[in-house]
Amino acid sequence: MRLRKKPWAEPLIKASSEFIVTKPEEYQSKWQTRFSKKAPIYIEIGMGKGRFIIEMAQKHPEKNFVGIELQTTITAIALKKQLGLRLPNLQLIRANGSGLNEYFAPAEVSGIYLNFSDPWPKKRQRKRRLTYRSFLKQYKEVMKPEGIIEFKTDNRGLFEYSLVSMNNFGMFFKEVYLDLHESLELGKENVMTEYEEKFSKKGQPIYKIEAGFTPRSIK
Amino acid sequence: MRLRKKPWAEPLIKASSEFIVTKPEEYQSKWQTRFSKKAPIYIEIGMGKGRFIIEMAQKHPEKNFVGIELQTTITAIALKKQLGLRLPNLQLIRANGSGLNEYFAPAEVSGIYLNFSDPWPKKRQRKRRLTYRSFLKQYKEVMKPEGIIEFKTDNRGLFEYSLVSMNNFGMFFKEVYLDLHESLELGKENVMTEYEEKFSKKGQPIYKIEAGFTPRSIK
Repeated sequence: MRLRKKPWAEPLIKASSEFIVTKPEEYQSKWQTRFSKKAPIYIEIGMGKGRFIIEMAQKHPEKNFVGIELQTTITAIALKKQLGLRLPNLQLIRANGSGLNEYFAPAEVSGIYLNFSDPWPKKRQRKRRLTYRSFLKQYKEVMKPEGIIEFKTDNRGLFEYSLVSMNNFGMFFKEVYLDLHESLELGKENVMTEYEEKFSKKGQPIYKIEAGFTPRSIK
Repeated sequence: MRLRKKPWAEPLIKASSEFIVTKPEEYQSKWQTRFSKKAPIYIEIGMGKGRFIIEMAQKHPEKNFVGIELQTTITAIALKKQLGLRLPNLQLIRANGSGLNEYFAPAEVSGIYLNFSDPWPKKRQRKRRLTYRSFLKQYKEVMKPEGIIEFKTDNRGLFEYSLVSMNNFGMFFKEVYLDLHESLELGKENVMTEYEEKFSKKGQPIYKIEAGFTPRSIK
């Protein structure tokens, strides 16, 4: 997601250090100090305008959440919402997701959400996809052994690629949904992103995989 | 696929031992003797009326093919076609796919096709699905280490299940297609089954996975 740069965005981020971090490497292994209470930390890489991670934080006060986004203006839009809500279990990061293992210590993270990330459709761009093996390696480093990655997309090509990439990396699949909203009568929680609502209203299937790095993660 | 039993079916099978085997365990490790020349053997489990395996045999005279089907009348329909064509690289088996490792010796098979097999949608029936782990174990036993299973279906639930089952078994994914006919401009060969033509004409996506049991199989 890209938006025209707004002049208020950068000053707002600078003035809101209670809720947002721009040098996340300074908090490696110390993320719990940023929350009102200690709880398992769940992160979303590429949170966009923050709808998903904010709703998760509201629904799960027993967990701590970190939303990461690179684009300054989009991050600032998410930040505005949090400045209104002041959720004690939500922190934001404005930084590139590719530095994850510098932002978090091994096993500091309990779970990872990837929602509707950029498909980078050209083959030569595949190293930028958030399910490329160099990213998976970092997720494995920062996540607890029993942790799960939950990945949703409407992009068929990205999902096909991701199934192969995650499998070839040695990940263990827990659940695969090829039309998530058709399966929702199962009563499982599904917090939607902005994109997800838009695409599923058009009748496009939403793909989802839940997978981990150890057999323990899928039991 | 089930059809009303036809009275001519069993006698035709009995009279056509040149092309069909009903006690496949007698040919374990001796399948090459059933063909006019020695060549890698590819099998289809659940060939139905045989359209796919016959077209494969016609297109690939450099390979040998074995079609397996349990239902007598359906097998006899496939047999009728072969009696007209007399393809020297095609043999049929009327038997249950669950005895595969008694029909073939280790590494006697070079590749396996599973096309539109019964979804057995109820959870208690999952042991009958051709991608349940007890079947995968047999495929691994009879197939060469570099062999590939090619599995196609229009059934979303079966495909979701199969992705998880094959992954959890430790298989390596080579390709995944979530809408095969949309991807066909890539110029890859795709021989269609009767079902496939019917379902894809209705606009339903056809799912396909190509996967093997060793890293070598996906290189």
